[in-house]
Amino acid sequence: MSAVTRIPPQSGVAFRIRAGQILRIYDPLGEQVADLFAFKDDDHACSLSSGRSIDYASKIYLSTGDILYANDSRPMFRILEDQVGRHDFLLTPCSQEMFEILYHHHGHHPSCFENLYRALGEFGIRPEQIGTTFNVFMNVEVGPDGAVAVKAPKSKPGDFIDLRAEMDMVCGLTSCSAENSNNGRFKPIDYAILPGA
Amino acid sequence: MSAVTRIPPQSGVAFRIRAGQILRIYDPLGEQVADLFAFKDDDHACSLSSGRSIDYASKIYLSTGDILYANDSRPMFRILEDQVGRHDFLLTPCSQEMFEILYHHHGHHPSCFENLYRALGEFGIRPEQIGTTFNVFMNVEVGPDGAVAVKAPKSKPGDFIDLRAEMDMVCGLTSCSAENSNNGRFKPIDYAILPGA
Repeated sequence: MSAVTRIPPQSGVAFRIRAGQILRIYDPLGEQVADLFAFKDDDHACSLSSGRSIDYASKIYLSTGDILYANDSRPMFRILEDQVGRHDFLLTPCSQEMFEILYHHHGHHPSCFENLYRALGEFGIRPEQIGTTFNVFMNVEVGPDGAVAVKAPKSKPGDFIDLRAEMDMVCGLTSCSAENSNNGRFKPIDYAILPGA
Repeated sequence: MSAVTRIPPQSGVAFRIRAGQILRIYDPLGEQVADLFAFKDDDHACSLSSGRSIDYASKIYLSTGDILYANDSRPMFRILEDQVGRHDFLLTPCSQEMFEILYHHHGHHPSCFENLYRALGEFGIRPEQIGTTFNVFMNVEVGPDGAVAVKAPKSKPGDFIDLRAEMDMVCGLTSCSAENSNNGRFKPIDYAILPGA
């Protein structure tokens, strides 16, 4: 039994994972988003690419069996199991600027972007290297006219997704800080690194 | 009258544009895609962000009046006029790896990614700095289940889009090299840099 680590509400962590290990991300209380980004451990120029992953999957909603690709088209993660089936790969992590531009927020607001770049900074990663995240449990609907709507996550308490690492990586992972993405309540996210098959 | 430059089929260019100038991109023969990427001229860490642009517009199809944002949430381009109304901002530029993974192509295939990194390399930009492009005239439909389908462009001969530069930038622009994106025929793209208002 591997240890489960809790990411408190509106915070983030960074950690290494080895090829073959499985990153299990739990939504312990339900309706909570977790933003994930990743870099090749020994080459930070190689990082997660939404555009390549969507292109190669020919769909915007990735789930069991699908691969998350790097910007150089190498597989980074394979989704082994997915108890929710709805995650977002279109939107950047919430940021101070997002809260100001979209919601006209005044003053500092906790954000996934800040939480990611602070945690990943410990590994020498700069903010501008963090691109569009795989937003685990985030429920973004795209209308026939292309309108994007953020809905309550479909995740129920205890649901998880298993992502097998296809290379050695440094990962950043958050408990999302955006009111609108988490049905108005900030909750923790749990994760574990499992040894794999 | 500003000079119009032709980008031959399956090739690409890079150029500087100043804040306030207008980048006009023409589809001279119709049904031809042009991939666009951009960096702040004096700070290449600042580059075009599909994820931020889609988030702030709350839609995947950007057109007249919409803003293309950088990864640090600063405006890079504003769409002043758009005679086509359908462009893609989900997919990475076509690449050697894309032709191999999606189409099982053998041997070298011209690609927007190669054409962009060769042209932008003259400005000191590395391939991994090129993210999801704004794929002008590319017609990507997203089904209700999230399936992505590449259709023939809606652009007719002579149609154009005007993008006003909101900062000094280095841009890469291509005539797209993917059979499937251009209704099976590789055509040129024309562009001009207009002085602005």
